[in-house]
Amino acid sequence: MNIQQLIDDIAADVRPYLAQAAPADYIPALAGEDPQQFAMAVATLDGQLYATGHSDKRFSIQSISKAFMLARVLAVYGDALWQRVGKEPSGNPFNSLVQLEYEQGVPRNPFINAGALVVTDIALSQIGDSSSALRDFLREESAQPALDFDYVIAASESEHGHRNAALAHFMKSCGNLHNNVDQVLAHYFRACSLRMSVTELARAGLFLANHGASPVSGVQRLTRSQAKQINAIMLTCGTYDAAGEFAYRVGLPCKSGVGGGILAVLPGKMSIAVWSPGLDSRGNSLASLEALDRFTTRSGESVF
Amino acid sequence: MNIQQLIDDIAADVRPYLAQAAPADYIPALAGEDPQQFAMAVATLDGQLYATGHSDKRFSIQSISKAFMLARVLAVYGDALWQRVGKEPSGNPFNSLVQLEYEQGVPRNPFINAGALVVTDIALSQIGDSSSALRDFLREESAQPALDFDYVIAASESEHGHRNAALAHFMKSCGNLHNNVDQVLAHYFRACSLRMSVTELARAGLFLANHGASPVSGVQRLTRSQAKQINAIMLTCGTYDAAGEFAYRVGLPCKSGVGGGILAVLPGKMSIAVWSPGLDSRGNSLASLEALDRFTTRSGESVF
Amino acid sequence: MNIQQLIDDIAADVRPYLAQAAPADYIPALAGEDPQQFAMAVATLDGQLYATGHSDKRFSIQSISKAFMLARVLAVYGDALWQRVGKEPSGNPFNSLVQLEYEQGVPRNPFINAGALVVTDIALSQIGDSSSALRDFLREESAQPALDFDYVIAASESEHGHRNAALAHFMKSCGNLHNNVDQVLAHYFRACSLRMSVTELARAGLFLANHGASPVSGVQRLTRSQAKQINAIMLTCGTYDAAGEFAYRVGLPCKSGVGGGILAVLPGKMSIAVWSPGLDSRGNSLASLEALDRFTTRSGESVF
Amino acid sequence: MNIQQLIDDIAADVRPYLAQAAPADYIPALAGEDPQQFAMAVATLDGQLYATGHSDKRFSIQSISKAFMLARVLAVYGDALWQRVGKEPSGNPFNSLVQLEYEQGVPRNPFINAGALVVTDIALSQIGDSSSALRDFLREESAQPALDFDYVIAASESEHGHRNAALAHFMKSCGNLHNNVDQVLAHYFRACSLRMSVTELARAGLFLANHGASPVSGVQRLTRSQAKQINAIMLTCGTYDAAGEFAYRVGLPCKSGVGGGILAVLPGKMSIAVWSPGLDSRGNSLASLEALDRFTTRSGESVF
Repeated sequence: MNIQQLIDDIAADVRPYLAQAAPADYIPALAGEDPQQFAMAVATLDGQLYATGHSDKRFSIQSISKAFMLARVLAVYGDALWQRVGKEPSGNPFNSLVQLEYEQGVPRNPFINAGALVVTDIALSQIGDSSSALRDFLREESAQPALDFDYVIAASESEHGHRNAALAHFMKSCGNLHNNVDQVLAHYFRACSLRMSVTELARAGLFLANHGASPVSGVQRLTRSQAKQINAIMLTCGTYDAAGEFAYRVGLPCKSGVGGGILAVLPGKMSIAVWSPGLDSRGNSLASLEALDRFTTRSGESVF
Repeated sequence: MNIQQLIDDIAADVRPYLAQAAPADYIPALAGEDPQQFAMAVATLDGQLYATGHSDKRFSIQSISKAFMLARVLAVYGDALWQRVGKEPSGNPFNSLVQLEYEQGVPRNPFINAGALVVTDIALSQIGDSSSALRDFLREESAQPALDFDYVIAASESEHGHRNAALAHFMKSCGNLHNNVDQVLAHYFRACSLRMSVTELARAGLFLANHGASPVSGVQRLTRSQAKQINAIMLTCGTYDAAGEFAYRVGLPCKSGVGGGILAVLPGKMSIAVWSPGLDSRGNSLASLEALDRFTTRSGESVF
Repeated sequence: MNIQQLIDDIAADVRPYLAQAAPADYIPALAGEDPQQFAMAVATLDGQLYATGHSDKRFSIQSISKAFMLARVLAVYGDALWQRVGKEPSGNPFNSLVQLEYEQGVPRNPFINAGALVVTDIALSQIGDSSSALRDFLREESAQPALDFDYVIAASESEHGHRNAALAHFMKSCGNLHNNVDQVLAHYFRACSLRMSVTELARAGLFLANHGASPVSGVQRLTRSQAKQINAIMLTCGTYDAAGEFAYRVGLPCKSGVGGGILAVLPGKMSIAVWSPGLDSRGNSLASLEALDRFTTRSGESVF
Repeated sequence: MNIQQLIDDIAADVRPYLAQAAPADYIPALAGEDPQQFAMAVATLDGQLYATGHSDKRFSIQSISKAFMLARVLAVYGDALWQRVGKEPSGNPFNSLVQLEYEQGVPRNPFINAGALVVTDIALSQIGDSSSALRDFLREESAQPALDFDYVIAASESEHGHRNAALAHFMKSCGNLHNNVDQVLAHYFRACSLRMSVTELARAGLFLANHGASPVSGVQRLTRSQAKQINAIMLTCGTYDAAGEFAYRVGLPCKSGVGGGILAVLPGKMSIAVWSPGLDSRGNSLASLEALDRFTTRSGESVF
């Protein structure tokens, strides 16, 4: 398989999709991204890096941060985590209060917003300044000490974040947030505001492809079982209400963000990052999904 | 890896779990199974078959039949299928009417009961006598011409099947069942009543592990993409409301049945069948889940 | 108050509404009614009867039958009834399965379809041929021995009644229907198919306005408390998902049917029946609601 | 009817219920009330006042304030109100987020918490300092210039009010709160914290019994239609998830509060206030409901 050729072809093939989708419009900083942008990068376990498109452009990783934050908390806190958040896919949108109320404040999984708020809350209790710790982790794993938050985006999210505030207050009323609501929200929004490029993101995902051992930092970030677990949750819950569609078409563990990025993992082989700001109706990057579908279909590679 | 040794060890290790779970009690024919029974079989792509426990005892495969029926319908009817049933995991129990009503009679996925009824309905329209066709298919793929329905169980299910009748009538009222309600239910219950042993089941699952090409019958049952798709849906939706738990612990596409059986697939390598009648609170075989967890954890093999 | 003048004026005033609504279209026999028809009748406790419009035309009373069936069952079976059905208003449409599932097969109130099926089931157990008994009761209370079922409508409802069959099978699966599902449905549809005119209906409602004692038959049909109870349930639950709107605008206990009829009760004074086939978006007769609103607003009479 | 004798008898009869229920326990200030307290007062349109029990003891009126606030806003803002809140009974608990999400931030009625927050928001926009205005209104209508907030209770509610904060933030995210979330919550909690005795409360309710014209202040507080409307909403929505039970047993428009008080209205005749701190499972005062049931059953008086 000639990976460079493959992703260059894909970049050309998905071009028609760029005009069919618009960026997230709920905050100005995201809405302003040019939807014609596209980038894809593949980092292999043997140290190769392939990239195409706007691969050096940093974008807001948004919910992709949830996969890394979960990995950090699972490493530190272990299975005790699962007493505060479930690991089952949700049949409802990522910011729904309905299921949360029926399940009395215990979110269905760590990748819906409520679940990520609980993970952030645990991180605050266990690690302290959780958003800074996540930033430092990603700096190490992408070998890019310059990575940082986008404070404008974080502030904008906070200002428009009444839905997330509703989730947090509800869980606080159920006793499933231990720290101050405003503090949890601030760290959550800050972590989501991190900016990375697809090459940085693909590299940072390698420890998930390598059964927990990072070839970048040389650190064993997770046990083999924990890496399996994070990948399993990415596959079943990582792409909002479209996990079934992604599993069916792409067949890889993925985590997407409303900034238009998607991180995908092929265990034992490689980590893939794609970015294009235009979103489909379920909040995933339209062109990125098309690109990943083509990548696994043409290469014949997937977990299935 | 010494597979025979591994599954013999596992059979010994899960013995304490046998006493902790009771068989399904909603129909007498299932309730009467001795919960002390356990069997496990592994069929590899290179033609080996390993088995332990009550591996020749035939049991009611129940919902495992849904995976095979889906494979048949996908092969015949293709992606048109997805206009009548979704492919997203459900946040609700397998026989819930709630989600079905919110989604106006289009079931979330083909493995909840409502979805399987739609698949059966399509099979009736496309294939004719769908339950007999499924029996014949499984006779070929297990190389066991004696496989058959358990008419006592089918009749008993039918008699106690008011919940499934409610699902079917509701979908009929939405226009999403085309055949007669009673006929659809009869074929559904008959397919579920098929009796197979773990060795027969493991062998019958090989075409899913071999990207669609059956090493038993020599027939290409599905395209490579379709095999990926079936495995993806098994992983995200195959174990009732516990798909996340299975992905997390086992990390393989699985399909379970209330008869206590589970079929698991390791693409490119093997097919695994486990059986023990005692069920956990979510309707999956307790000892079979424990066995599969140990199998992937000790062997280090999983899709992740 | 000159009642005849008032209802004649109202008949003129609501004429523009007749063209704005269409009859129920789910069965041909109802869909064929001319939407230009309107009738209103008032029967007072002192024996007067006032009528305007097509007041001798018999129409399908449909769900209005539920109020009479409930009165019969409450008289015979007493408060034991409330162990099988609630008496709280429902926040969901009249034929919803959602709430029924959450409340494990115990319908919210006797006027949603599921609740009326339970009441019919109790009537079958307590009274025997429940639909014939209801017909005979209404013949006596309207002093019209010729009242009868419309067997064409009953058959048509049965043929298209998959939604009601779903409700019945679901409750059967929960153990809250004791008789055969098909038998319950048959009696339910037959009772709904009764044809009455507004004058007959207004007269038949007098026992509810007279604290249980019928001035027509001379029989004490309900105790004073039971009459209060039926009126209370009509006010809180009698008009599908619009009980609040009716209470707010009309301020009387009402029971409506998809045939376009509404029965209203002013306790201590009178019984009012209105009919016009065109329905609003919630399944109540548009012109009949307008007429009742005008009647209570102009007369200053209501329970509030 | 000898009202004094009747309520004295009732006070004796409900004594056994006092020990069967506990005060609201979610804030210390309410939890500390002695559950053995009971009081009942009746104010008639002809100026009589009857009282029994701890009738001078002021208690926290809590949600009873919602009826008065609604009356104030309806008088000022009129039917435009109903574009921001519904008037249908809710099938869900008073503080549920589920229905609110399905109905996209428009609360079902003004007496569930979400609805009362919207009414408070409108009051803030239309009247300014809404809680002080309500206090002044109640001072006039009870002829008690000393009535005031309980700032300790208001502060305690605010501290434990994460559930209400969740509702408010959710509606803010839907655009259905116009003022600052914290400001709306502060006025809401302050209005709920008002302390009144049953005699003061019964007197203050007289304008609702007198078709809008207050015999206390001599002011026409509502039009006849508006008084009917408020009473209608009290009857269908005024007692949390037990409106059907109240209508069935009591047959009067009622508004209850978790402080243990209930205000009931018999249009054209009288206003009744009852108080006892112990609550039943649905949040209404257990002994107060028993007392109102006996009052209407023995007197034969109710709206039905």
